[in-house]
Amino acid sequence: MSKFSEYAAQYRQALLDDVIPFWEKHSIDREHGGFFTCLARDGSVFDTDKFVWLQARQVWTFSMLYNRCDARPAWLDIARRGAEFLLQHGRAPDGSWYFSLTREGRPLVQPYNVFSDCFAAMAFAQYSVAAKDEQAAELARTTYRNILRRRENPKGIYNKLVPGTRPLKNFALPMILCNLTLELERLLPPEETEAAIDACVKAVPGDFLDAERNLILENIAPDGSRVDSFEGRLLNPGHAIEAMWFLMDIGVRRGDRALIEKAAGIVLATLDYAWDREYGGLYYFLDRLGHPPQQLEWDQKLWLVHIETLIALSLGFAQTGRKECREWYERVHAYTWERFPDPRYGEWYGYLTRRGEVLLPLKGGKWKGCFHVPRGLFRCWKIFESMGEG
Amino acid sequence: MSKFSEYAAQYRQALLDDVIPFWEKHSIDREHGGFFTCLARDGSVFDTDKFVWLQARQVWTFSMLYNRCDARPAWLDIARRGAEFLLQHGRAPDGSWYFSLTREGRPLVQPYNVFSDCFAAMAFAQYSVAAKDEQAAELARTTYRNILRRRENPKGIYNKLVPGTRPLKNFALPMILCNLTLELERLLPPEETEAAIDACVKAVPGDFLDAERNLILENIAPDGSRVDSFEGRLLNPGHAIEAMWFLMDIGVRRGDRALIEKAAGIVLATLDYAWDREYGGLYYFLDRLGHPPQQLEWDQKLWLVHIETLIALSLGFAQTGRKECREWYERVHAYTWERFPDPRYGEWYGYLTRRGEVLLPLKGGKWKGCFHVPRGLFRCWKIFESMGEG
Repeated sequence: MSKFSEYAAQYRQALLDDVIPFWEKHSIDREHGGFFTCLARDGSVFDTDKFVWLQARQVWTFSMLYNRCDARPAWLDIARRGAEFLLQHGRAPDGSWYFSLTREGRPLVQPYNVFSDCFAAMAFAQYSVAAKDEQAAELARTTYRNILRRRENPKGIYNKLVPGTRPLKNFALPMILCNLTLELERLLPPEETEAAIDACVKAVPGDFLDAERNLILENIAPDGSRVDSFEGRLLNPGHAIEAMWFLMDIGVRRGDRALIEKAAGIVLATLDYAWDREYGGLYYFLDRLGHPPQQLEWDQKLWLVHIETLIALSLGFAQTGRKECREWYERVHAYTWERFPDPRYGEWYGYLTRRGEVLLPLKGGKWKGCFHVPRGLFRCWKIFESMGEG
Repeated sequence: MSKFSEYAAQYRQALLDDVIPFWEKHSIDREHGGFFTCLARDGSVFDTDKFVWLQARQVWTFSMLYNRCDARPAWLDIARRGAEFLLQHGRAPDGSWYFSLTREGRPLVQPYNVFSDCFAAMAFAQYSVAAKDEQAAELARTTYRNILRRRENPKGIYNKLVPGTRPLKNFALPMILCNLTLELERLLPPEETEAAIDACVKAVPGDFLDAERNLILENIAPDGSRVDSFEGRLLNPGHAIEAMWFLMDIGVRRGDRALIEKAAGIVLATLDYAWDREYGGLYYFLDRLGHPPQQLEWDQKLWLVHIETLIALSLGFAQTGRKECREWYERVHAYTWERFPDPRYGEWYGYLTRRGEVLLPLKGGKWKGCFHVPRGLFRCWKIFESMGEG
């Protein structure tokens, strides 16, 4: 068996024999619908609040696996439980999505965060295919267009910045739109998709790129210039790298080799800047001038940063054949697989210290759910499978 | 020289020969007024934004030292520079205090945070005494009464909680009012002071106390019951301990021995719960049921937690004579003085890892300014001085 086939088997097994069974077993709320996501090391539920990001992401994951991996009725059933819970409880009267709900579905935190809407749109788009549900498709479309309408001021009334003093454009929404637009593609008129992708490609490797160092800035001035403030100096390597595989997907779809090469180059430059040469692993936040970042968690090693990097590097290698992608892949693979999976109780730890020790033993919480790990395992499995066959 | 006199000398020297000169040398913005607070290890300025909390706290510190330590004209001059900057730029049209300003004083972040007002009231109260400035006294009073008016919903329009689902009362404002009311005492009619102190004493060691374990809860339901959510389970040991020396001050002022004993008992119970038995030092956040807290920085060792604990323990020992206060004092003293001060460039590090290594080399930032260290050094100096004489 080739190395690539071995990797494919490793990812497939982790996905189907470990991670998905963990969420099937521990996360289903059979009483009130939806999912528990605050799961302790052994899968026991330690908090029952329902965060819309994570409810939606789990709907997406099970729908996506049903659509692309194996049409198991049990997976569609899980996706349906989440979709119905969200349909019933997730939206405020204006159609935007709450940030969090109680276990029973009562709204807890207002729709201040446009990413709730992003993950809801993503969830209902995949679910509409799995369930052949035109109402879900319509909800995905409506939500997607609401996001585009809110893009200039996504925080709305919850924006604490005084208008005009130091306006900033943030990377996260343009970045997510790269992926979300492809996710919604089959639900949108082709010209709407193409225009949205054009805007993504312009923003993401364009406006936010520090071309000199090939690094993505998390916040820039509206005219694209750099800002010397905590926000303006912020680098978020995991975001940057995740965005680069979104761009590679766009490059593959459009047959745009130059875009793929550019994205792979940014991944490599980001790794070179953000790799911890003392303890290994990728930092969570950095300051582009090397100043102390505001985020006290800056040096922690997060599961999502590492699994996203494995996708970007395996896809980057599959697409470009650059040996640096292969070398970095091996290094990040060794680091990640040694530290994040929990052989005793299954699934992955989310939060390690700079030294790679477990910081919080949780398998799920307010921000970690059934999403980055299974999505990454599935993508890497398929990428290595295609290379193993090649 | 007795041990107490040695400690008094150590605190005095650190305050007058190290910490205050550090801020005198590095923090004054001679061009635009106010203070730089984002200071790197060597005191160089790495960011010029002006956070109202920290501008006000530095005004307080220099005014307080002028009033209580030594009436040096240079100190009053520094306080005046901050007070004038705040007067000119700090307030929104409705009289509430912005959260942050640019170096030049343009408003950056809206007055979403009532603690800006708290520190402004505290600053102008001390400054009014130092400068014999009745206008400053009036501003302190007005700001204090605005805070009391906002206390039921201090976040105002920036509150993201959906009303009614899970209302919470937070500990921070009642806690700060314990201290702030004493700070404003000479500016308020006696009956207003007494009523406010009554409310403080009722809330702080009453409503928020988990009497079974003698621990302070950071958030409770309006009826005083406990809430099983991330917020409702949160313990903030540094907050709890700081509040206890505020209460001891109230106890001393009122001759209320029972209150002092109660506060000392809560300090000891908090230390017992929050001390890291593996690496030493006090955790920043904990969950009262032992679940993973939301705060990724939960295990870090912060300067303010440790200096506030030294005040609480030295005052607790001076007031109660309990040998546990003395024993804990020695332990926290040894931990703190070994790790936080920077003998090379002066002042204290703010943020250590769980293991006590420097996490961020800064001496000041968005949250650390010229406040907790000098206030703590001054208090401990005076407490040990009085015990050394005894």
